[in-house]
Amino acid sequence: MRPVFPIIATCLLLATSPVVADPLPSWAATETKARIIDFVESVTDPASPDYVTPADRIAVFDNDGTLWAEKPFYFQAFYALDRVRERAAADPSILTSDVLKAAAAGDIEGVASGGLEGLLEVIAVSHAGLSVEEFQDDVNAWLAEARHPSTDKRFEEMIYQPMLELLSFLRDEGFETWIVSGGGVQFIRAFADEAYNIPPQQVMGSAGPMEYVDGKVMKLPGIDFVDDKEGKPVGIASRIGKRPILAAGNSDGDFAMLEYTTNGDGPRLGLLVHHTDAEREFAYDREGHIGVLVRGLDEGPERGWLIVDMKADWEQIWP
Amino acid sequence: MRPVFPIIATCLLLATSPVVADPLPSWAATETKARIIDFVESVTDPASPDYVTPADRIAVFDNDGTLWAEKPFYFQAFYALDRVRERAAADPSILTSDVLKAAAAGDIEGVASGGLEGLLEVIAVSHAGLSVEEFQDDVNAWLAEARHPSTDKRFEEMIYQPMLELLSFLRDEGFETWIVSGGGVQFIRAFADEAYNIPPQQVMGSAGPMEYVDGKVMKLPGIDFVDDKEGKPVGIASRIGKRPILAAGNSDGDFAMLEYTTNGDGPRLGLLVHHTDAEREFAYDREGHIGVLVRGLDEGPERGWLIVDMKADWEQIWP
Repeated sequence: MRPVFPIIATCLLLATSPVVADPLPSWAATETKARIIDFVESVTDPASPDYVTPADRIAVFDNDGTLWAEKPFYFQAFYALDRVRERAAADPSILTSDVLKAAAAGDIEGVASGGLEGLLEVIAVSHAGLSVEEFQDDVNAWLAEARHPSTDKRFEEMIYQPMLELLSFLRDEGFETWIVSGGGVQFIRAFADEAYNIPPQQVMGSAGPMEYVDGKVMKLPGIDFVDDKEGKPVGIASRIGKRPILAAGNSDGDFAMLEYTTNGDGPRLGLLVHHTDAEREFAYDREGHIGVLVRGLDEGPERGWLIVDMKADWEQIWP
Repeated sequence: MRPVFPIIATCLLLATSPVVADPLPSWAATETKARIIDFVESVTDPASPDYVTPADRIAVFDNDGTLWAEKPFYFQAFYALDRVRERAAADPSILTSDVLKAAAAGDIEGVASGGLEGLLEVIAVSHAGLSVEEFQDDVNAWLAEARHPSTDKRFEEMIYQPMLELLSFLRDEGFETWIVSGGGVQFIRAFADEAYNIPPQQVMGSAGPMEYVDGKVMKLPGIDFVDDKEGKPVGIASRIGKRPILAAGNSDGDFAMLEYTTNGDGPRLGLLVHHTDAEREFAYDREGHIGVLVRGLDEGPERGWLIVDMKADWEQIWP
C-alpha cells in the first residue's frame, strides 16, 4: 500500500500555491491601487492584527456611477421613458404630472430636473402591473436592443472594467459583494448576475409595493423604500444585518453608507469614484442633477476615504 | 521528475468519493425521509432531468414551530414580556392597550389571545429605542439566562435536531438556506448563526422602521412589514428575488410561501411539520391562537406537499 500523506501534502500545496497575477490589471500603478490591495491583504491574512473572518467580509457597492455610467441620466430612466411613451400612446390620461409629460415626450432633461424623486415617479407609472418575472424579462429584452445616446454602446457595455476586477478580487478573497443602489431593485437584478456576477439576493435598491396573487408576486404602482442617502445604511441593517467593512460609491447619495461602514470598529475601507475623465467617460462632481459629489470630496479624505481619480487611476474604463 | 497526473487523479478521487453516512440520522426510515432524499438527489445529479443549478437551489424555512418550538407561545414573546415588565415598572404610561397590560402582568394567555398582531404590538413597545447592535446584545444576554416555562430548557435548546440535519444536508448539497419568519427579523438574527448556521443576511422576518442617526441604525417603534401569510412570498420576491425550490413551514401562515414555491416550474418540494407528539414535544394543529394548521392539512397532500409526522418521522426531537 502506498503512503497517503505525501499525496495529501501535495494536494494542499497545489491548493495553496500563491496567485502571482495582478488582481487589478486595469488599475494604474498608483497609491490608490496600492491602498486597495493593502487593505484586502490586511483583512485576509490570518497573521495580521486587522484580520477579519470571511463571514464578516461584506462589501457594498452603489451601482449608478460606481459600477456603470450614469450620464446623461440614470440608465433606468431610458427604459422608463420608452415604456411611458408606449403606455401614454395607448392611454394619455396616465400623464398626471410635468415629469411624466416630459418622460412621454422623451425629454430627458425635463425628467432629470426632477432628480431621483422624479425618476422614481416615472418608474412607478412605467413599471407597475407586471409580475416580477415578467418585468425582468421586459428589462432584458430592452437591454438587448437599447443604445446609449452618445456612445451608441449597449448599456451593459458601459460597466467599468476596473470595478469588475475589484468585485472579482474581493470575491476571490472571501468577500460577499452586494449592490446597494438608489435605482430600482428589480431593474438591477435583471442584469446584475450576468454583468457583475452578483446574484439577485445580493442586490438591494429602491422598491415599490408588491402583492401576492394566485401564486405570483405582482408589482404595484408607487415607491415605498428609497434606497438612497440615509436609506442606504437603513437598507443594509435591514437586509444584511451586519455592518460592511468596505463601501464604494460616487456621490453624496452614498455618504451615509460610507460613513456607516467606516464608523465601525476595526479595519474599514470607504471608496469614492471621482468622475474626472471627460475624454473616455464623463467629468462631473459638484454640479448637476445626479451624481453630485460635494461633501464626499470635502470630508472624504480627512475621513480616510479613498478618492479614485478615474482619469489617473484607471488605465481602461470599459470592458 | 515524477508524473503529476496520478497525483491530480488521486486528489479528484479523494474529493469525489461518495459520502456513505446517513445525512438525516434523526429521521426515521419512513417514506417521508425517502422523499426528501430523493428530491435532493434529483435536483443535484447533473444527469437527472430535474437537475437544478446551484445558484437556483434556494430553500426557505419558517422558524417558529418549524426550526424550534413555539408553545405555549412564540419564544420571542417571553423576551418581550420580560422587557415590557421592566419598562412599565419605570413608566406605566406605556401600557396603552389590553395586550400591553397583559404583557406587563406576565399574562401569556392574554397576549396569546391577540395572535401575531398582539405580539407585534408588544414587540413594538419592548424593542424600540435601541440600535440594532444593542438590541441583539440584549437578546443574547436574555437567551443565555431565560428558561422555557414547562421544559426548563434554554430556548436555544428547543431547536429541532432533524431540521438542523436537513439544513446541513441541503447546504452540503449546494443549497442556500434562508429563514422566512413572522417573528422579528433582528430577534432571530441574534441567534440564527450560532443555532442554525444561517447568517444574518439569510434571515428575513417581520420588521419595524429604523432610522440612521450619527453613524448608527436605530430601531423605531412600530411594525412596517409583517412577514406572514401573503407577506412571505412578497418578502421572498423582495429580498431573494428568485422563487425557492424548497419551502418548509408548519402552519397556515406558511401556506402562501409553500404555494408560491411549489407553483414554480420544475422540481419543487413543500414540507409541513405536523406537531403530533404530545409526549416529546406538543400536539396541536387545527385549534388555538398560534401555529394553526387547517388548510395545509386539507390541501397539502393533493398539492404534493410532504406532511412530516413528528411522532412517526422523527426519532429524536431536541439536539
